[in-house]
Amino acid sequence: MTDKATNLTFHSGSILRADRQRLLSQKGVCLWLTGLSASGKSTIACLVEKALLDGSKLAYRLDGDNIRMGLNRNLSFSADDRAENIRRIGEVAKLFVDAGVIVLVSFISPYARDREQARAAMGAGDFLEVYVKVSLAEAEKRDPKGLYKKARSGQITGFTGIDDPYEPPLKPEIVIDTETSEPQQSAANIVDYLQQNGYLAA
Amino acid sequence: MTDKATNLTFHSGSILRADRQRLLSQKGVCLWLTGLSASGKSTIACLVEKALLDGSKLAYRLDGDNIRMGLNRNLSFSADDRAENIRRIGEVAKLFVDAGVIVLVSFISPYARDREQARAAMGAGDFLEVYVKVSLAEAEKRDPKGLYKKARSGQITGFTGIDDPYEPPLKPEIVIDTETSEPQQSAANIVDYLQQNGYLAA
Repeated sequence: MTDKATNLTFHSGSILRADRQRLLSQKGVCLWLTGLSASGKSTIACLVEKALLDGSKLAYRLDGDNIRMGLNRNLSFSADDRAENIRRIGEVAKLFVDAGVIVLVSFISPYARDREQARAAMGAGDFLEVYVKVSLAEAEKRDPKGLYKKARSGQITGFTGIDDPYEPPLKPEIVIDTETSEPQQSAANIVDYLQQNGYLAA
Repeated sequence: MTDKATNLTFHSGSILRADRQRLLSQKGVCLWLTGLSASGKSTIACLVEKALLDGSKLAYRLDGDNIRMGLNRNLSFSADDRAENIRRIGEVAKLFVDAGVIVLVSFISPYARDREQARAAMGAGDFLEVYVKVSLAEAEKRDPKGLYKKARSGQITGFTGIDDPYEPPLKPEIVIDTETSEPQQSAANIVDYLQQNGYLAA
């Protein structure tokens, strides 16, 4: 039971991300979907997840459902807490990437600075920004949850696109135009990108 | 592009934890290792991780190295922040469990209440408390990082076992006595537990 420190150092380094990636036959990567409410982020993320699983690839989605009620349930919608919300999501995504998982992050994430911080926290090639593009007019027309209507009538405030800005990505790795491409096709395009860039092999 | 809400609901439910577990031929579970500093938590966690990978099972470790400098880098060592530290770790572990991963959590986590909150946040059978047991005398004798010495001399304060309490688990699923069992054997015992309780099959 001597040499604990030596043991620790040795064993800490013995299993690496590369080992996990070999087991999974894929590379860990974060697909960061950003776009207005009702742009179709979640729909596309779910379709990508399904296509990947059909190809025996392990993906996991981080979205409002599993983050806002869990890890980030002690955050408000203040400016500081919104930034902390995205920071924590980025850090968790980084852990999943290190685990070898293809992690699909699906949040409006309206501020370029917050997204750039998430990118900067990860290694080169580990963060792929996916701009899920829709015009405000089209998003308002869809409005599946009636949120734009509530924002227009002042029932909710600080709503992205109405009384809070959305900063589009300047150099996203992937752009999805949801007004010209169906969700199935958009998802297929994302999977193609992963395939062509070597993410679906270890 | 109509019926976004319907699409969303359908696709959200289409990929489940069970699907990921089938892909991985394992069940997602959190092994929560708790014990004094120098008890051997990290050494044992690394050995378990290696044994699992050798058996083509996906494990991932959450420990000070990847949490304190990342997700929890904005937390101090105040009482509130220590609780928040463990809360966030528990929430992240829960996400990994949902992803189908065997997640090894390796922190002193001295307070029973914090560990019980992590357990309560997860489903039945998803949280296995592993008490990595060592006497204070033996931990101080090992003292690989010289931390006990510093705590005794007052150079560091609030150190678990010296001037801050360690609350042993009352009903841990697994107990590892590191004064009578070598790390390799302890790790093998943990893997056996997983095997015998069905975690290493989907």
